[in-house]
Amino acid sequence: MKIAIDAMGGDYAPLEIVKGIEIARDRYQNIEFQLYGTENEVKPLVNNWDRIELIATTEVIAMGDEPVKAMRRKKDSSMVRAAMAVKEGQADALFSAGNTGALLSSAIFLIGRIKGVDRPALASAMPSFDGQHDQFVFMDLGANAENKPSHLYQYGILGSFYATHVLGITAPRVRLLNNGAEEDKGDEVHKIAHQLMKNSPSFNFLGNIEARELLEGTADVVVADGFSGNAALKATEGTALMMLKQIKQAILDSGVGGKLGGALLKPAFKQVQKKLDYNEAGGAVILGVKAPVVKTHGSAKAAAVANTMGQIKTMLDNQLVPDIQNYISAHTEELQSGKQVLNAQLND
Amino acid sequence: MKIAIDAMGGDYAPLEIVKGIEIARDRYQNIEFQLYGTENEVKPLVNNWDRIELIATTEVIAMGDEPVKAMRRKKDSSMVRAAMAVKEGQADALFSAGNTGALLSSAIFLIGRIKGVDRPALASAMPSFDGQHDQFVFMDLGANAENKPSHLYQYGILGSFYATHVLGITAPRVRLLNNGAEEDKGDEVHKIAHQLMKNSPSFNFLGNIEARELLEGTADVVVADGFSGNAALKATEGTALMMLKQIKQAILDSGVGGKLGGALLKPAFKQVQKKLDYNEAGGAVILGVKAPVVKTHGSAKAAAVANTMGQIKTMLDNQLVPDIQNYISAHTEELQSGKQVLNAQLND
Repeated sequence: MKIAIDAMGGDYAPLEIVKGIEIARDRYQNIEFQLYGTENEVKPLVNNWDRIELIATTEVIAMGDEPVKAMRRKKDSSMVRAAMAVKEGQADALFSAGNTGALLSSAIFLIGRIKGVDRPALASAMPSFDGQHDQFVFMDLGANAENKPSHLYQYGILGSFYATHVLGITAPRVRLLNNGAEEDKGDEVHKIAHQLMKNSPSFNFLGNIEARELLEGTADVVVADGFSGNAALKATEGTALMMLKQIKQAILDSGVGGKLGGALLKPAFKQVQKKLDYNEAGGAVILGVKAPVVKTHGSAKAAAVANTMGQIKTMLDNQLVPDIQNYISAHTEELQSGKQVLNAQLND
Repeated sequence: MKIAIDAMGGDYAPLEIVKGIEIARDRYQNIEFQLYGTENEVKPLVNNWDRIELIATTEVIAMGDEPVKAMRRKKDSSMVRAAMAVKEGQADALFSAGNTGALLSSAIFLIGRIKGVDRPALASAMPSFDGQHDQFVFMDLGANAENKPSHLYQYGILGSFYATHVLGITAPRVRLLNNGAEEDKGDEVHKIAHQLMKNSPSFNFLGNIEARELLEGTADVVVADGFSGNAALKATEGTALMMLKQIKQAILDSGVGGKLGGALLKPAFKQVQKKLDYNEAGGAVILGVKAPVVKTHGSAKAAAVANTMGQIKTMLDNQLVPDIQNYISAHTEELQSGKQVLNAQLND
C-alpha cells in the first residue's frame, strides 16, 4: 500500500512529519510513503530512503489560508498534489497535519465523495472511560456547519463501519447527540433524524445521548450535526485541559504537603493525560470520501505521525472504504426511502 | 420583597426546600417567603413561621411530566400556583427545583415575556478560571431548541444586564459561541447573528468564542443558541466530573505512594470542586420574563436553596427586570432594525 504524505502541513512540518514517517517505515513492513513537499526543505531530513519517495512541490497551504480558495489556487502545493495522487490512483490514502478546511476541500472536491454519501464528515475516536470499550467514534466534528436529517442517518452507517473496521467493535451501539433522552427532543432536524435512525436496518440505534454522557462509554458511535458536535468536542477538550491545570495549580497553592502529594501523583496524572492524548489515538478521519484521508493535530510530533500511519494501515488492511462503498451502493433504496420519509415530514 | 417558592419541586422536596428557606429567612432580613405545597407534607417541616407563609396546594408536577401539558392541567400544583402569585402581583419572584420545562412554560405563559423579548432563555453563571472575573453568564442553555439571529442579539442585551446587575461586572465582554473565531464561521443563523451583534450599540461585542475557551475567562457573557449551548454546557459538566473521577481512580490504582498523595491532595480537590459546584453559584435564571424566575438543580439541598435566595434578592435589589424592561422599551427601534437587517439577509 502507498500513502501520500503532505510533508509541509502542521506546526512542526516538515521535520516532525519526516521523522514520524521514518519511524512508521521501520514499524510497518508493507507501506510505501510518498512525501509531497519542498525539495530543499524535505530532502536533507530523510536519513534512509527505503520505501520513502520525495515528490517535489513548490507551494504550501498555510494554516490561515482560506480553505477552498487555497485548494483551488495552490495547485502545486504539497497537500493538493498529495490529494491528486490519491485521485489518480498513485496512492491509496492521504495524510496531512495542515489546514483542516483545505484538507476537507481537497478530500471532497479532488478525491471525491462516495456515491450516495451526501455530506462527508469529520470523525475521531474519543476516549470512553467507563464502558465496555476504550474508545468511541464521534462525528461530525465540524466538516459541516449545517446538517439535514438524512446526513445524520448516513453518519450512523459511516460511523458503524469505522467502529467495526478500525476499533474492532462488533454491532456498535449508535446514539444521536441531542438535548434530551426522549425521542421528541431537539429541533426539527434532530427529531426527524431520530425517527429515521430508529427504523434503520443498517445499524444498531440506541436512541439519543446527552453531551454529559459522552465520555461514559454508553455509545460506540455518537452522531452529531457538525455545529453542535464541534461545540461538544471543543468543550470536552477545553474542560479536560482546564481541570488538569486547576488541580495542578491547587496542588501548588496548597503548600508543602500538597507539593509532596503532587510529586507522588505524577504517574496518576500521566495516566489520565495519556488517555486523553490525541497523539496516542491517531488523527481525525474524513469519512464518506473515496479513500482514507486522515488529519492529525497541527501540533503533532513524530510519534503522533507514526501512530497515525498505523491507523491508516488498519483502514486499508480492513477494507474500510471499499466496504462502505459496497454497502451504500447495495442499499441505495434504503437511503432513498429515508429521504422520502424526511421530505414528507418536512412538508407537513 | 416576597418570593414564591415551589416547595414540592426537586429530588429532596419538600424537606430540603423548607430547610433552605429557613436558613435564608435567618440570613436575609427583608424577604417574605410564600411556600406553595401540600399542607400535610410541608407544615410539619417548618420550625419557625416568622416571615414564612404556607399556601396549601393539592397537586405536584413531577420531574417526568410533559411540561406544557402539566402546566396547563395541574392548575392547583405548587409550581403553577406560585407562578400565578407572581403574575397577580402577590409575589415578586419565583423559585423552583422542579421540572425545568414546566417552569419555563410557567414563566413564559403564566408570568409572561417582557414586551420586545421574542424568546426568553435559560442563563447560568459559570466559573471563569483564568480571567479578570470569577464567573461569566452562559445562555441560552436549552430553553429553545432553535433560535433565530435576532434572539441571539437579544441575548447579548439580556446577558449584559445580568452580568452588570448580578455579577457586578462593568461593560461586560459579550461573545458568540461559534465553530471558529472568524466572523464568517458557522451556519447562516450564527453568521447573521455575528453581523447584528458586531454593530450593536447595546453591548460590548468582542466576536466569536469557541467552546474550547469557555472556562478561560475571555468573555463575561457567552451567547449561544439553545441547542449547542445545551450541548456545550453538558459536555463541560460531564467532562469536569469525569476528570475528577479519573484522577481519583488513578490515585487509588497507583498504590501506597499514590494513596498518601491522595490524602495530602484532598484540600486541592475540594477547592476545584467548590469552584465547579452549582450549589455555590445559585440557580439557572429564566431571562426575558416579567419577574425573576430561578431554577436550581433537582438535587439541590438546603444550602443551595438558601444561596439561591441570595441570588434572587440581588436580582430584586438591583432592579434587574425593571431595568431590562425600561431599556428594551426605549430601544424598540434598534431591535426592530436588527430584525430588518436579518430579514433582508435571509431573503438574499
